Amino acid sequence: MLQSNLFTKTKKEAPSDEVSKNAELLIRGGYIHKEMAGVYSFLPLGLRVLNNITQVVREEMNAVGGQELHMPALQDKNVWEKTDRWDDAKVDNWFKTNLKAGGEVGLGITHEEPLTQLMTEYISSYKDLPFSVYQFQNKFRNEMRAKSGIMRGREFLMKDLYSFSKDKAEHDAFYDVVKGAYKKIYTRLGIGHLTYMTFASGGIFAPFSHEYQTVSPAGEDTIYIDEEKGIAINKEVYTDEVLAELGIDKTKLKEERAIEVGNIFTLGTRFSEPLELAYTNAEGEKIPVFMGSYGIGVSRLVGAIVETLSDDKGIIWPDAIAPFRAHILALGDNAEAHTKAVELHDMLAGQGIDVLCDNRLGLSAGEKFADADLLGIPYRIVVSERSLKEGGYEVKRRTEEKGKIVKAEEITSFIK
Amino acid sequence: MLQSNLFTKTKKEAPSDEVSKNAELLIRGGYIHKEMAGVYSFLPLGLRVLNNITQVVREEMNAVGGQELHMPALQDKNVWEKTDRWDDAKVDNWFKTNLKAGGEVGLGITHEEPLTQLMTEYISSYKDLPFSVYQFQNKFRNEMRAKSGIMRGREFLMKDLYSFSKDKAEHDAFYDVVKGAYKKIYTRLGIGHLTYMTFASGGIFAPFSHEYQTVSPAGEDTIYIDEEKGIAINKEVYTDEVLAELGIDKTKLKEERAIEVGNIFTLGTRFSEPLELAYTNAEGEKIPVFMGSYGIGVSRLVGAIVETLSDDKGIIWPDAIAPFRAHILALGDNAEAHTKAVELHDMLAGQGIDVLCDNRLGLSAGEKFADADLLGIPYRIVVSERSLKEGGYEVKRRTEEKGKIVKAEEITSFIK
Repeated sequence: MLQSNLFTKTKKEAPSDEVSKNAELLIRGGYIHKEMAGVYSFLPLGLRVLNNITQVVREEMNAVGGQELHMPALQDKNVWEKTDRWDDAKVDNWFKTNLKAGGEVGLGITHEEPLTQLMTEYISSYKDLPFSVYQFQNKFRNEMRAKSGIMRGREFLMKDLYSFSKDKAEHDAFYDVVKGAYKKIYTRLGIGHLTYMTFASGGIFAPFSHEYQTVSPAGEDTIYIDEEKGIAINKEVYTDEVLAELGIDKTKLKEERAIEVGNIFTLGTRFSEPLELAYTNAEGEKIPVFMGSYGIGVSRLVGAIVETLSDDKGIIWPDAIAPFRAHILALGDNAEAHTKAVELHDMLAGQGIDVLCDNRLGLSAGEKFADADLLGIPYRIVVSERSLKEGGYEVKRRTEEKGKIVKAEEITSFIK
Repeated sequence: MLQSNLFTKTKKEAPSDEVSKNAELLIRGGYIHKEMAGVYSFLPLGLRVLNNITQVVREEMNAVGGQELHMPALQDKNVWEKTDRWDDAKVDNWFKTNLKAGGEVGLGITHEEPLTQLMTEYISSYKDLPFSVYQFQNKFRNEMRAKSGIMRGREFLMKDLYSFSKDKAEHDAFYDVVKGAYKKIYTRLGIGHLTYMTFASGGIFAPFSHEYQTVSPAGEDTIYIDEEKGIAINKEVYTDEVLAELGIDKTKLKEERAIEVGNIFTLGTRFSEPLELAYTNAEGEKIPVFMGSYGIGVSRLVGAIVETLSDDKGIIWPDAIAPFRAHILALGDNAEAHTKAVELHDMLAGQGIDVLCDNRLGLSAGEKFADADLLGIPYRIVVSERSLKEGGYEVKRRTEEKGKIVKAEEITSFIK
């Protein structure tokens, strides 16, 4: 893409009411736009990142056999009353509204209820189980405060997977499979080294749930990390009793702030019982379906990655989710440099490599470098009178101090 | 995909309150699930169709230079008050709700207002224009009645493109480019032969808007078609004066019911003036930006295609948007047929061809044929004891009466 065509521009300042680093950098880079507190638009560059994260998560959800579907935001009050989660006294972050035709509806905070209800039409026999479904869907949560940028939105994109099993043993086996998939996801997204599977409050059906926590001072949670075992404990369950149960040595733990980027939860029959989702076993008995839920905050991940992988100049996108592979800068309003830069853009794009080409006129080298650092695309390719004299383009990684001259014919293999 | 793994099943009946053919067939096929009147989930097969339509539309929007973004559903009341479209007396299909933190918000019926507001941060000079942006985004409309299945939803997926131009001449040129893109889209979607560019009410800035109307008795609109010219007139502007203006001979027109599957509209400065979206021209004068909007109801299209391309046995998906290319049926619980069917599935899937393989046990040939007809996948490939004896598989198009035997090694080229 030619940057001269891109309608967004970088900004020196984010809105004055924006206190989070993630939103500040993303707004300044033209990745997102703040509509209201906790409500953001994804602009072309930001949507590319969001879609790249979505694709990584989708591939891993497909790999565990998840079947993708898409449910609506509008929620039928009657279904939520059956599980006693409609009342504002029970769930305090509903957005509710009224149908002109009469009746109240809510905006989905999550989808256990409607999905359990839906499955009563498709599950009847033990032969129908087990399976899992997932979606990428915008959730709505009426947060009192929204000061963490896109890490705690009032409207945000979530991946939610739900599993349906015959019993706890079958559920547990799938639950472990999802643990493996989540590990792969955070590794592929470039934050595997900062992200810990974290023991958190369970419920009636399991002693613990598992959160995926990414270490960052911007996090809202406190966790205790056992670096050797590669796991952590959420403060909410951090007791001597739990440590003993998990065989963890308290003296080895390190306290950190962290961002919850995912969670997996054993729902058991919490929803299937009130909503009467049951199957008939081989003996002809009716048994409630045993369920699990597995969330990943996709738009929150954009924020978490910016919070953890950025420096004082701007964002540093991991390769797998960067909006472009390379950022070509044509320097100095030099006609030859501009022609060569656009040629290089066309060549790489023709090979299926996503490149952004800064062919804007009237900007100094310093301004273009600063924009490239702010945008944080993995490779920067400078095309200037000097680089051409030296026989090619000056290429460097976003994280490198100095670039090196790479010849035109070697550029593809260099950045691939 | 193996049909034995698919959690959805076909149904003999749709919900009794469902009166539209599109929803009836889509629900019976397991493509969609009705949550409430006018509110549907897209199940795995339905989501595949929706995504395929989305991809066709996206490619054509990219081809006209549209930059994709994504705006939220939650709407800031203040912005809509500036254009006088917040008041229920002016716009009668808002869903409105309250922030816990105080203040009222709406659910986006469309996005002219927030997008115009957003662009005030990015457009300042004539050098920034022209350009266009688009999104695939769920709109919410509080319809009094919702009896047309997914053709008039309370929550539905729309593609909306918006253009920003310096003046009417620049706008008109782009408007014509979009006309060309729309023609391509409906052709690619398989309803080009039924879809007419239709003159409809304009506004202050243009004598007409243009709708894209697909002929169907299920349509809510009445249009008058000039078959020779390949255009139509909406009843709302069907006057002798307009006919004369367009040079159309009244005696040649044919009256039809039709479904509006898209519309393009000259907005002019209707939004840029109240929201102060202006640019500075070369002479230093402030000029309001000249805008256009271009909608396509993506989920409505799923319904419109089912309404127009189906027979008494079920759906007939056009190739470009079918959930799968071929539907392999293993007949008769014959072990060899089942093994061969799954082998064929794996081979075609390995070649990147999307296939559904009905490997379910305990169903008669008649039941499997009926399901295949209902689902409407372009090619049906029967693997049975008989077909194997005859040297291959019996392949037929969904619309053909009889199939023919195709050898294993010729199957890929046959269905490609």
